[in-house]
Amino acid sequence: MCTPAPFPDPSGRSKADVEHGSELLPKFDKDGLIGAIVTDEAGAVLMFAWMNADALDLSLKTGIAHFWSRSRGKIWRKGEESGNTLTILEARIDCDQDAVWLKVSVGGAGVTCHTGARSCFSRTIERAADGTVHLAAPADA
Amino acid sequence: MCTPAPFPDPSGRSKADVEHGSELLPKFDKDGLIGAIVTDEAGAVLMFAWMNADALDLSLKTGIAHFWSRSRGKIWRKGEESGNTLTILEARIDCDQDAVWLKVSVGGAGVTCHTGARSCFSRTIERAADGTVHLAAPADA
Repeated sequence: MCTPAPFPDPSGRSKADVEHGSELLPKFDKDGLIGAIVTDEAGAVLMFAWMNADALDLSLKTGIAHFWSRSRGKIWRKGEESGNTLTILEARIDCDQDAVWLKVSVGGAGVTCHTGARSCFSRTIERAADGTVHLAAPADA
Repeated sequence: MCTPAPFPDPSGRSKADVEHGSELLPKFDKDGLIGAIVTDEAGAVLMFAWMNADALDLSLKTGIAHFWSRSRGKIWRKGEESGNTLTILEARIDCDQDAVWLKVSVGGAGVTCHTGARSCFSRTIERAADGTVHLAAPADA
């Protein structure tokens, strides 16, 4: 079965087209994936996940974040089991179009991480005066 | 020359150790890299880049963001040429310790992107009623 690619191929396009143009030309990596940073409206980073072309296309078409699960090898609508779906308030792409930033509203219990924390980034990296490093709960946790 | 790894090997550690422990056990990908999300204090995503173990170690030791340049194949202290260095205000790691979030203060001209924009994420992805997609300058640009 041949699935037509939902996005144009960026190879062969000029750097100016990619970096300054108005055309979405996402650059997927050698595994066909693009990284997606997810933040809430206040700018807290909630999670980082991967999208293949279909997951990005579905996310843009439905306004609900979809990712590619590398462990399960399938498209994954975040919250399909937990109810904590991510409604996309704004989607951005970076200069070289190889990373996506989604600003979202978290549905359900407002939890993003499978550990039950609001954010997957719930531990700060602290460095003591003697050079040792440990993880700690952030002040706002 | 053998460079000792600056971090413990997370393979063989329990999921609980990785997800809930206080030990930094960064999981580098098959290319030896970990993704780093960079935001400013207000929560705007400025850039996404990669770190190898030495770049992460240097970032933590110096408090200044260092990355691994995949195109140049070398450690890169962001701003070493432009003066727009990134001073790390807070570093976090995610649940499975395969992504880093740096909250930074941008030095020099306050610019992060090589295009001259404050953020690499300076274009929103807009979807028109007819389903076509294009990129636009965000309202706060």
